[in-house]
Amino acid sequence: MDVAILGATGAVGQRFVQLLAGHPFFTVREVAASDRSAGRRYAEACHWNLPTPLPDRVGDLVVKPLDAPLDSPLVFSALPADVAGEVEERLADAGHAVSTNARNHRMDPDVPLLIPEVNWTHVEAVAAQRARRGSEGFIVANPNCSTIVLTLALKPLQDAFGLERVMVTTLQALSGAGYPGVPSLDILDNVLPHIGGEEEKMETEPRKILGTWRDGAFVDAPVLVSAACNRVATADGHLECVSVDLGLDASPDEVTATLRAYRSPLRDLGLPGAPDPVVIVRAEPDRPQPRLDRDAGQGMAVTVGRVRPCPILDYKFVALGHNTVRGAAGGAILNAELLYARGLLG
Amino acid sequence: MDVAILGATGAVGQRFVQLLAGHPFFTVREVAASDRSAGRRYAEACHWNLPTPLPDRVGDLVVKPLDAPLDSPLVFSALPADVAGEVEERLADAGHAVSTNARNHRMDPDVPLLIPEVNWTHVEAVAAQRARRGSEGFIVANPNCSTIVLTLALKPLQDAFGLERVMVTTLQALSGAGYPGVPSLDILDNVLPHIGGEEEKMETEPRKILGTWRDGAFVDAPVLVSAACNRVATADGHLECVSVDLGLDASPDEVTATLRAYRSPLRDLGLPGAPDPVVIVRAEPDRPQPRLDRDAGQGMAVTVGRVRPCPILDYKFVALGHNTVRGAAGGAILNAELLYARGLLG
Amino acid sequence: MDVAILGATGAVGQRFVQLLAGHPFFTVREVAASDRSAGRRYAEACHWNLPTPLPDRVGDLVVKPLDAPLDSPLVFSALPADVAGEVEERLADAGHAVSTNARNHRMDPDVPLLIPEVNWTHVEAVAAQRARRGSEGFIVANPNCSTIVLTLALKPLQDAFGLERVMVTTLQALSGAGYPGVPSLDILDNVLPHIGGEEEKMETEPRKILGTWRDGAFVDAPVLVSAACNRVATADGHLECVSVDLGLDASPDEVTATLRAYRSPLRDLGLPGAPDPVVIVRAEPDRPQPRLDRDAGQGMAVTVGRVRPCPILDYKFVALGHNTVRGAAGGAILNAELLYARGLLG
Amino acid sequence: MDVAILGATGAVGQRFVQLLAGHPFFTVREVAASDRSAGRRYAEACHWNLPTPLPDRVGDLVVKPLDAPLDSPLVFSALPADVAGEVEERLADAGHAVSTNARNHRMDPDVPLLIPEVNWTHVEAVAAQRARRGSEGFIVANPNCSTIVLTLALKPLQDAFGLERVMVTTLQALSGAGYPGVPSLDILDNVLPHIGGEEEKMETEPRKILGTWRDGAFVDAPVLVSAACNRVATADGHLECVSVDLGLDASPDEVTATLRAYRSPLRDLGLPGAPDPVVIVRAEPDRPQPRLDRDAGQGMAVTVGRVRPCPILDYKFVALGHNTVRGAAGGAILNAELLYARGLLG
Repeated sequence: MDVAILGATGAVGQRFVQLLAGHPFFTVREVAASDRSAGRRYAEACHWNLPTPLPDRVGDLVVKPLDAPLDSPLVFSALPADVAGEVEERLADAGHAVSTNARNHRMDPDVPLLIPEVNWTHVEAVAAQRARRGSEGFIVANPNCSTIVLTLALKPLQDAFGLERVMVTTLQALSGAGYPGVPSLDILDNVLPHIGGEEEKMETEPRKILGTWRDGAFVDAPVLVSAACNRVATADGHLECVSVDLGLDASPDEVTATLRAYRSPLRDLGLPGAPDPVVIVRAEPDRPQPRLDRDAGQGMAVTVGRVRPCPILDYKFVALGHNTVRGAAGGAILNAELLYARGLLG
Repeated sequence: MDVAILGATGAVGQRFVQLLAGHPFFTVREVAASDRSAGRRYAEACHWNLPTPLPDRVGDLVVKPLDAPLDSPLVFSALPADVAGEVEERLADAGHAVSTNARNHRMDPDVPLLIPEVNWTHVEAVAAQRARRGSEGFIVANPNCSTIVLTLALKPLQDAFGLERVMVTTLQALSGAGYPGVPSLDILDNVLPHIGGEEEKMETEPRKILGTWRDGAFVDAPVLVSAACNRVATADGHLECVSVDLGLDASPDEVTATLRAYRSPLRDLGLPGAPDPVVIVRAEPDRPQPRLDRDAGQGMAVTVGRVRPCPILDYKFVALGHNTVRGAAGGAILNAELLYARGLLG
Repeated sequence: MDVAILGATGAVGQRFVQLLAGHPFFTVREVAASDRSAGRRYAEACHWNLPTPLPDRVGDLVVKPLDAPLDSPLVFSALPADVAGEVEERLADAGHAVSTNARNHRMDPDVPLLIPEVNWTHVEAVAAQRARRGSEGFIVANPNCSTIVLTLALKPLQDAFGLERVMVTTLQALSGAGYPGVPSLDILDNVLPHIGGEEEKMETEPRKILGTWRDGAFVDAPVLVSAACNRVATADGHLECVSVDLGLDASPDEVTATLRAYRSPLRDLGLPGAPDPVVIVRAEPDRPQPRLDRDAGQGMAVTVGRVRPCPILDYKFVALGHNTVRGAAGGAILNAELLYARGLLG
Repeated sequence: MDVAILGATGAVGQRFVQLLAGHPFFTVREVAASDRSAGRRYAEACHWNLPTPLPDRVGDLVVKPLDAPLDSPLVFSALPADVAGEVEERLADAGHAVSTNARNHRMDPDVPLLIPEVNWTHVEAVAAQRARRGSEGFIVANPNCSTIVLTLALKPLQDAFGLERVMVTTLQALSGAGYPGVPSLDILDNVLPHIGGEEEKMETEPRKILGTWRDGAFVDAPVLVSAACNRVATADGHLECVSVDLGLDASPDEVTATLRAYRSPLRDLGLPGAPDPVVIVRAEPDRPQPRLDRDAGQGMAVTVGRVRPCPILDYKFVALGHNTVRGAAGGAILNAELLYARGLLG
């Protein structure tokens, strides 16, 4: 199936190109980006800065402008929020399936905010969305990168014990800010204790994701989240210090065993990007670490460690995931793989 | 007054040397360190790695072994915990006042765990300790570096509103691990989500510090602390993301105004190392930052920012302080200045 | 004397503001910058990122546009090269003394490319420049930051032994690229082996600086320079590995002694920004280092170490200086102090 | 063929384990290390810090002491120099083929200092060495990591134009110092302009490597090398700024074309670790970079860029290679693959 990538020259756009190289379902046929890049060969328009080589075939594509009509039935969007909203809406109305990483449509009432292992049933909302649009097109959205890591770690606990309150402090990687993103002078020998809009997303998105689609509407999960977000000098891999208040009593061993035993509901679908296990539990006292654990499961797994009681809530742990793979391009590709497997792509 | 420095060649020992250069009360006359250094000139025994020059006079001192008798009435200790306990005990019994940064005696029932601005009244325990020893000597201890930053930020809130629960996640600097400390390969493009013993200290020490000395014993404050400690790639400056549950209702403006209005009880003592203000509140959304704020108040102030409501506890904020100045050598020197001003040094 | 700063909001502009705080000769009365900043209070227009506080008085100045007439007789320019040329020319023609850090006029035939300790006699060109302009105004230029560090280290050798060939490889700091400058994703765990235009500057500027002003024209020194420039992950402090071919034979001890004995020709002028010594020679095998030595002499000295024979040219050594102090704002201020002391400012 | 790894728990030792996982010729059967580790399971004795998982089979091996007899005919040595000399000597005398990364025997008169693509004919010295020992055992040595990168880039130029003088300044990665190696406090926001012994190695080893084995002795190549070595904050990948004086005249295009056209003499041997091409030439102005190019050719290729005239010698360029793969474990494995293919292993 032919696919297009919007915002293909940026940090997340490059990850899409990298992760789709040799993909068994999808072939990149079109790339589109802002006027600054449009009309140029992709290889020239983009400042490729991944250590794997840029695939030749994609490098030779001519970048299209964002308002060009597209041929590909499936569109991945890595657009920045200031342009994503309108462009994605237009493409969905025109019949394309749009798997987006942008924040604009995440909270729309009929747009699934999708982490397949957590809420694959939310794809049922696609039918409602198609009806609204009067088109075969639709949008599914990837949550915020920090939210994805957090929610994947929370899901097994919610299933087993219920989940009432979550305190999370993040130590987020530079690639989460895109490119050029964070100036080096701001982060060398430093921490930035603020990421615009991030805490708000982490405090709202998990409620939708962990909730249900029922009677034609999303019903939020009754979980309260408090987030404090920091930028640190790591290239990739968001690390999150989490404390949770569970609905039921649970021993430390039960909590650890529950995380460890968790199996993805996607296991039997044969999705190429689905990690197994999806949550890796490490026993060492000093794991997970960004450099050592971000690539676990090809960057699609979440690693959890340091599960221990919390003197205030019930349990504390540390979670880590790759923010531009699991938390962005890889997540949006997995969303599309799910749609493909469920017969929702044309 | 002549002073000695124990463990003078390490990271904190060097800070003692630096901060005592030109001190109006104290003159460094003796340095002592482990057998590896003993007998050598200080300038040769230590791998000086501060950007200010090593004072010549100290560089020429011959390093004494740790079991040597000392002439100085006041002794600063930057010893590692595996040797500090016994050495400090012996010196106190022999009549020296010991202001230590080591953890060994912090929780002793008659040793003040001192942050002068927070609990200067705890020096009353010195009399009890002297009585126990049958000596003029005694020990006062500096809390853990992360505890100091946290507790200074909490004190104004405790005074104004009462303090019930504190959740804190730290992003701690490399110098907190001493020298050679953290290998560069472990921290480049990485975070270490574990610091041995640190969370336990942060969960217990504030209770003693914020408590009272009454009827010959310390009574803990009834505050519950939950800590998650991380090492990040900053040289100096511990940053802490804090959520607090207050005893009384308070508006965001009241909380900020209370922190801003806080005045050190030491203001009239004329202590050279006492910062004024002791807590600096910044209004910018992205402060405090380690590189920009760690040197505030000559490294002795704590900077607080991002005061905002917490969806789970009452308020969240970010606090930052210099871990080897305020959190170690500078703090221990301020402790000694207080003892000096209170007539407790000889 | 009242001074204006052009390009005041950038990285070098902020250094001007910082270094001129409390200056005995000069008072900042005007700040000017691009249209994006013009009309706003300086404190709001600039993203102040130095660890010392922004002086209140300057923070309250309203930023002027670059085409505004200025009242100050002396103007410091931290403008980027795309606008500096014309603006500085206009101000000099209008009677202002312009001490610039921009590259545009460095090689002009009557503009001194000034490092006061090296070529203070080049100020004689000011008279010729004034005559050309028909105005009391003129421009003096600061060399490129890497050139300054190199040339200060070479001058004592040129004086004592003559200088024929210089090979230099630089490891330059991030602040040399301005702000926002180098994206953090480009430099974390990385080196950039190219800095646009830098090698060309290092290969040409020293010839003018080390040359002479004779009969109304600059005569280049007959020294050949080959440069390779790299950007590394340091905040401040350019480190340079240098090999030199001297005109005369010299023993290693003579070379070291010559560097160590070098005395600035400015010593008796009482210039507040002139370091003494101007070249610091360190004997340790692993110095100079950016973090430890960049602030030597208030950031105005150059530190040299590892003087040793070169198997191909004559001697190798390592030189280091602070690129935004000695190599930019501090250098341009010292240039103005020299002009002031020589009676060339009004 | 069964192999043993000496010094298996260190940084280079771990690379051996990683790179030998699934190797078609060699299977790791024994690991040996210092007394601190001996007797423990490898997984427990080593602080594994590579992002790929430790192979289970190796993790379960019990670490042998260094003086234990070994069963494996082939031994890889990642021992530190203070113990390598004697241990390797004993094993070679006892009949083992030893492929070492240690420096001790590099300059021995009958020990090949081997970079297979450069001087594979030096394996002829093995016969002489066996004769001396009166044993089937022998030692072949890997050059210093910086030397390997440099010499691979020089070899095509030597072949085509002759090579007279080489000036090189290195920017070397942290992993070159082993683990724990460089303390983080020494390198954050810093450069270390000295690496003990490194310059001497770079100035002598290439002469042997680029020379010939003739009439039972190594004859040095008549090339003069001057090196300046620096440690920078990169994890892996030594970057080297090189200037060369060639024996023949050559145009810039000829130099570039020669590097680009270079083909490894090993191409037809089918060695699993041999990269093709062995030298990659990049045309971008800002390559090679450590993060982007160190993994080229599975970390076994050397990347060259910025080929340009040098005002003093003939040409300048930048070379980069992976110091613990090509420059250490991977190089020593390739050496053994060559021995295997040439029938020199048992």
